[in-house]
Amino acid sequence: MQIMSAPALDWTQHLTKNSQGLKRSAVREILKVAVRPEVISFAGGLPAPECFPSELIASASARLLDKDHCRSSLQYGESEGLAELREHLGTSVSRPMEEVLITSGAQQGLDLLGRVLLAPGDVIAVENPTYLGALGAWRPQGVRFAPVPIDGDGLVVEALEKLLETERPKFFYTMPNFHNPAGAVLSLERREQLISLAEKHALLILEDDPYGDLRYDGEAMPSLLSLATARGLADRVVHLRSFSKVVAPGFRVGWLTAPPVLHDALVKVKQSADFHPNMLGQRIMLEVIRDDSFPAHLDHLREVYGARRDAMDDAVSRHFPGGTTWTTPQGGMFLMAQLPAGIDAASSLPTALEAKVAYVTIDNFTVDGSGQDAVRLNFSNASPERIEEGIARLGDLFRSLA
Amino acid sequence: MQIMSAPALDWTQHLTKNSQGLKRSAVREILKVAVRPEVISFAGGLPAPECFPSELIASASARLLDKDHCRSSLQYGESEGLAELREHLGTSVSRPMEEVLITSGAQQGLDLLGRVLLAPGDVIAVENPTYLGALGAWRPQGVRFAPVPIDGDGLVVEALEKLLETERPKFFYTMPNFHNPAGAVLSLERREQLISLAEKHALLILEDDPYGDLRYDGEAMPSLLSLATARGLADRVVHLRSFSKVVAPGFRVGWLTAPPVLHDALVKVKQSADFHPNMLGQRIMLEVIRDDSFPAHLDHLREVYGARRDAMDDAVSRHFPGGTTWTTPQGGMFLMAQLPAGIDAASSLPTALEAKVAYVTIDNFTVDGSGQDAVRLNFSNASPERIEEGIARLGDLFRSLA
Repeated sequence: MQIMSAPALDWTQHLTKNSQGLKRSAVREILKVAVRPEVISFAGGLPAPECFPSELIASASARLLDKDHCRSSLQYGESEGLAELREHLGTSVSRPMEEVLITSGAQQGLDLLGRVLLAPGDVIAVENPTYLGALGAWRPQGVRFAPVPIDGDGLVVEALEKLLETERPKFFYTMPNFHNPAGAVLSLERREQLISLAEKHALLILEDDPYGDLRYDGEAMPSLLSLATARGLADRVVHLRSFSKVVAPGFRVGWLTAPPVLHDALVKVKQSADFHPNMLGQRIMLEVIRDDSFPAHLDHLREVYGARRDAMDDAVSRHFPGGTTWTTPQGGMFLMAQLPAGIDAASSLPTALEAKVAYVTIDNFTVDGSGQDAVRLNFSNASPERIEEGIARLGDLFRSLA
Repeated sequence: MQIMSAPALDWTQHLTKNSQGLKRSAVREILKVAVRPEVISFAGGLPAPECFPSELIASASARLLDKDHCRSSLQYGESEGLAELREHLGTSVSRPMEEVLITSGAQQGLDLLGRVLLAPGDVIAVENPTYLGALGAWRPQGVRFAPVPIDGDGLVVEALEKLLETERPKFFYTMPNFHNPAGAVLSLERREQLISLAEKHALLILEDDPYGDLRYDGEAMPSLLSLATARGLADRVVHLRSFSKVVAPGFRVGWLTAPPVLHDALVKVKQSADFHPNMLGQRIMLEVIRDDSFPAHLDHLREVYGARRDAMDDAVSRHFPGGTTWTTPQGGMFLMAQLPAGIDAASSLPTALEAKVAYVTIDNFTVDGSGQDAVRLNFSNASPERIEEGIARLGDLFRSLA
């Protein structure tokens, strides 16, 4: 019979080696479990849905989809993104709109950069730990990650300097504000030192800054892009930004600035990747961030998240075993806690899920697999009461292992 | 001075060779010129904005963004796409939802497939001419395209059979319905022959079908997916679909079905490419296509586009020089006209733009650069009156060159 005799396709012949080796994102897979309402999840990086500026979004959408105005939100658009939005964003970082590219979420920026910059065997310098979505985007390209340590003041610049004596990385990827997962902020002095390194070594810096607007304490720092621009070195910095944390992630609208030659290459790849970012999402973003009430929305977000940060900082100090260390984050969405020696948080995750609490371990964020004894805890998407309850459950677990 | 002394980055060192060689999509660049209102453009592939189901979209959006329901349209979502939408679409093609992947436009489906299936040196069999967005997505991967001719009944299957005697292509990419740019429909007999080839040679077929719902004459044909499924060969076909032509393109929501192993690989790449398709766009699509009035919208679209197809077919027959040949398309959005020998339509494009009419030439769609004497004419985005006027202008130009 024909149905029986047809040989199945041999997918090991069909799929590329790289794609056969790809793992699903551990965090996204944990999220699927952690989404059950009875689980208190510190695992993801979700913004709080009760803080979405939903009325602003709904009224913007209603205006944009009005019969007389809807066509420009529904038709194909330019690969570079909506011109008005690019102009607005360029102005916000003092760069020309020609250097702004709207992306399908900031994640697409990382992906497109990898596609135009990376060839097999290339070296990328990264903070260790670093954002796992960046590792996931670039690892399939057959690159080697050169790790640079971070401390409470962010990147250890001397370590990068030393690395540059022997390595020639395609770029250095950094999160200077409220680092994911570490929560650290790069000090002003180190920012200036980093720009000096970029000057000396013709180093390209990818500055990923999705959390910069979410500062709860202390003074705002100038971006690496602005410091480089002031020194005539704007071509050293790609500046990546997100709307996911300050408006809403479901729209998949992010943006970046890039020097002209690189911008041009990114646009070409963007054309074949998905033509252009979705139009309604771009127009809604523009309406929302231009609205007179948007600064008040940001203030509200900072107030709510700041209280949650406080609740988590306090709960960790009371419930986690003695010897746990962490830096209280001045902003962002994450607190990283280093557990006392001998506690394997990675192996304990199933037990934690049974106790209805979820987290991710830092080994997901390192290039050397270290960090099984450290956890990233997201505080933006749980009330102070749920944070207290969840951290208490986790504290019970970790103290039982200490 | 520091600003003067800083050496610029050497981008030829930084950008990959592939991305330095990338060209901007010719059609998308022509579109930028052709968008001026005084130009009658047959160049793009734009649906008619006056036919967008804008009231359906606006009312769906208002319901979805209602204060009590908005959160699920604004938060992060699953990489595979919205489960309810996948289920609905799977049912529509009699495949399980597990095989459905929602993409950021159908273009992303082509891109993701290239990323998991293609390595440098691989051979891809394509119809010649074929969709330039597919060529653009896969060419940077260092592949070789093996061309297969098409005629008025679509793909010449015997030519593919002959090719398979000596080549082992990673897949065969085909547009069986209202081919872009040729307008042809693959006959039922050839569809069955193609599935037999797929069986015999363990050939993977990429069936790209963005226009299938836009049929103005004749009988609907069964998809390659359905024919393969009926013969126990569903693992031979990836079926790619779009909402851009039947709802609206600005949302960047497309979809595909893929056999399980391939689907799994695509989800992993999708995760690092842009996390997931935008949520509001997915939810709006689901509301729109489930609405009781959607079939009437499709009927209206077919009526409007059918009249435009008629207007173009008629105008070409009256205005184009003697010796021009074309197949009247039974559906879709394009008419391909082969001009008499000696007319170089590619070189004449600047003159045409001066005469305020735009088209694209078929050499953009071929793997061998042939087709400078043939044009693709889009009829969906101009009124019959504008079509008459524009084709008359083009006829004047081409007759002057004959």
